[in-house]
Amino acid sequence: MGRRLAVIGGDAGGMSAAAVAKRREPELDIVVFERGSYTSFSACGIPFHVGGEVDPLEELVARTPQKHRENGLDVRMGAEVVGIDLGARELTLADDSQEGFDELLVATGARPTPPPIPGIEAAEASRTLAEGGRLRAAIDAEGSGGAVVLGSGYIGLELAEALVRQGVETTMIDVADQVFGVLDPEMAAHVQRAAEGLGIDVRLETQAEEVLLDAGGRPRAVRAGGNEISTRHVIVATGVKPAVQLAEEAGMTVGESGALAVDDHQRAAGQEGVWVAGDCCESHHRILETAVNIQLGTHANKQGRVVGINVTGGDLAFPGVLGTAITRICHLDIALTGLTERQAKEAGFDYVVETIETDTRARYMPGSERMWVKLVAEKGTGRLLGGQIVGGATAGKRIDSLAMALWAGMDVESLMWVDLSYAPPVSGTLDPVLVAARAIKKLV
Amino acid sequence: MGRRLAVIGGDAGGMSAAAVAKRREPELDIVVFERGSYTSFSACGIPFHVGGEVDPLEELVARTPQKHRENGLDVRMGAEVVGIDLGARELTLADDSQEGFDELLVATGARPTPPPIPGIEAAEASRTLAEGGRLRAAIDAEGSGGAVVLGSGYIGLELAEALVRQGVETTMIDVADQVFGVLDPEMAAHVQRAAEGLGIDVRLETQAEEVLLDAGGRPRAVRAGGNEISTRHVIVATGVKPAVQLAEEAGMTVGESGALAVDDHQRAAGQEGVWVAGDCCESHHRILETAVNIQLGTHANKQGRVVGINVTGGDLAFPGVLGTAITRICHLDIALTGLTERQAKEAGFDYVVETIETDTRARYMPGSERMWVKLVAEKGTGRLLGGQIVGGATAGKRIDSLAMALWAGMDVESLMWVDLSYAPPVSGTLDPVLVAARAIKKLV
Repeated sequence: MGRRLAVIGGDAGGMSAAAVAKRREPELDIVVFERGSYTSFSACGIPFHVGGEVDPLEELVARTPQKHRENGLDVRMGAEVVGIDLGARELTLADDSQEGFDELLVATGARPTPPPIPGIEAAEASRTLAEGGRLRAAIDAEGSGGAVVLGSGYIGLELAEALVRQGVETTMIDVADQVFGVLDPEMAAHVQRAAEGLGIDVRLETQAEEVLLDAGGRPRAVRAGGNEISTRHVIVATGVKPAVQLAEEAGMTVGESGALAVDDHQRAAGQEGVWVAGDCCESHHRILETAVNIQLGTHANKQGRVVGINVTGGDLAFPGVLGTAITRICHLDIALTGLTERQAKEAGFDYVVETIETDTRARYMPGSERMWVKLVAEKGTGRLLGGQIVGGATAGKRIDSLAMALWAGMDVESLMWVDLSYAPPVSGTLDPVLVAARAIKKLV
Repeated sequence: MGRRLAVIGGDAGGMSAAAVAKRREPELDIVVFERGSYTSFSACGIPFHVGGEVDPLEELVARTPQKHRENGLDVRMGAEVVGIDLGARELTLADDSQEGFDELLVATGARPTPPPIPGIEAAEASRTLAEGGRLRAAIDAEGSGGAVVLGSGYIGLELAEALVRQGVETTMIDVADQVFGVLDPEMAAHVQRAAEGLGIDVRLETQAEEVLLDAGGRPRAVRAGGNEISTRHVIVATGVKPAVQLAEEAGMTVGESGALAVDDHQRAAGQEGVWVAGDCCESHHRILETAVNIQLGTHANKQGRVVGINVTGGDLAFPGVLGTAITRICHLDIALTGLTERQAKEAGFDYVVETIETDTRARYMPGSERMWVKLVAEKGTGRLLGGQIVGGATAGKRIDSLAMALWAGMDVESLMWVDLSYAPPVSGTLDPVLVAARAIKKLV
């Protein structure tokens, strides 16, 4: 028997590593343990299935277990790893069987964090494909009773919009004083207005206290902020935490972010032949210069690739993240990269900010919509620290040019002259990113 | 009387210079001579007026002469400068009057280049607002007789689409063997298919030989490639050349590109107190490292700003261009930046190319469309040299992230790891730009 790589977790991080490793070293014995019933699925796509835009659910599966097996991977479905013995190089599975390994990749992803309130066990979720399918089925079966979404981040907003699309009366509750907590508050206010415009009942600074159940054990109301909100569905979208318990019990190091610590080659900190990728691991933030934990399929894919290369004799560093993110909610693009004002402040930067309001197209073009660009730059040096964009359709993808500028360490003075594209159907004479750079340049 | 700046040309280059200079030095006496009847208008928007998307024509005027006058500029409309005496610091106007100056800005723009064939004087054009208005009126009055567009570049394609929108049977003729000559041929083939799909009759390698006129002197047919094409409208879109005659006669230097030579501060080569901005001047191409002439409002705006700052005691260099361009034609985004394969070859680079076909959104999302990204990179170093994008709605603006990468001098290995944004409604897990970088990386 040759060298064996065991992979815990069959989604983006685990499967991209497995696929790359197999391609580079076909004789490597690769076994993947996935406790669920799908591999390589798009969790990000679940709200669009709930909203009826994507059907059937299986559309969200990029590659089935069968497909992976045809490529030479030993993929075990419904196989939950419950113990790791790093010394003995052995995994224990839920059925008490043992599996040996030479190299191990921990790609256990993230787990939801429902609020610990009475009745929460009757709530629905949308983290896995199976949960997404159940949620959609429940809405199809009985949507008229209304829904309460706990949490107003990406997933909360996307689900709330999906529910409204399906004709479900929807209330969104968050303990925070703004929606979409990763944005600065005045940018998030645009998002809240759009959500309310769509008919979502947004209740902020509101703590969910209890899910009240009917005789059949199903939700009949949520008690929150002293009120009772009648509902048939309670959906948890209060965020996720890296799933590190298994690895931590095995003696692996958890960093300050709460995720597994790695070096820049995706090696578990202080371990030989143990790798980590995806939502459960830390990433180097290129602007903060600290380790952060960001759950996103694009990072998982890249980190898995780094593991796949390094585990087969390569020498490749993952160059880190900027915190770039985007979504489209309620006809509004929302995107950010690098630091928000809040993050710049917390990290102790001496910074300036500027926000411009402009148009997605030449103002005279039909379909032109309002958009806002907020930039954060370092005072004195003018180095770009981050950007946020909120606005009409197509506004958001402009965040990529800011991400590229951040990646290259550009200052806002250079940024304002870059030869970005212009034509009336897609931009004003100066792209909004350039307009924003011009505006903030005066302050640095 | 204080120091006087005379500006020849009241569009983007001239007016942005005048506006910036006035803001910085209110006591500067600024006089603008514009031979037409509009200032600061969007020539790029004319096809959308012809197509009926933008109405009335005046929507395309960003700032009227009156508005400029309120800001303290002396704007003379219908005022054609016919002579420049740089020694005597004096201009001669068409009415034989003289106007003195201390500083001069030449912003004379570009002029159309209709083919020198019999009957061409009966053709219509769309370079100025007045021409655009006349063309639209002519189509409104008699669209049923069909139209022949000479030229298949940006303007030719945009006009052909506008005419088809208005229900006009449209033939587009070009002597070249591909449409959209600035793209590489296989990328242009997608554009041709889209144009034909919209119903435009595209005839390549076809020389227009004569415009045949009726008894009233109006077009009745075009003779081209040995055929006669019946038509009521012939529209010239065969490109423009920098309008340099006036300046050349005054002794200013014309560069190899055919446009006026400038230093990096937009000073006319070898002249003191004489400036050039916009379509009539050369720009430094950052990848070719030569002077080029690119007619685009976004450059004119930036160069005008540089003049406005330097003429009022500032010290600012225009950092050059990449040749970034974008348009949306026949439901297709078309964009490029840096060098095409053809340009890289002509310039003697040792290069590799790669083209990927992918989707504008996650493949399972409704509204996802095909798109193609072609990259050119330097062999050995992997330095990005250029990119082209053709594809469905929203594909094109991704060119800006490539432009930013080019500006920063990135190589394709760095590029493939950049933290670009991902969400199913706007991108696959890896943005197409990253997918293309991964693909070309293997070849460098």
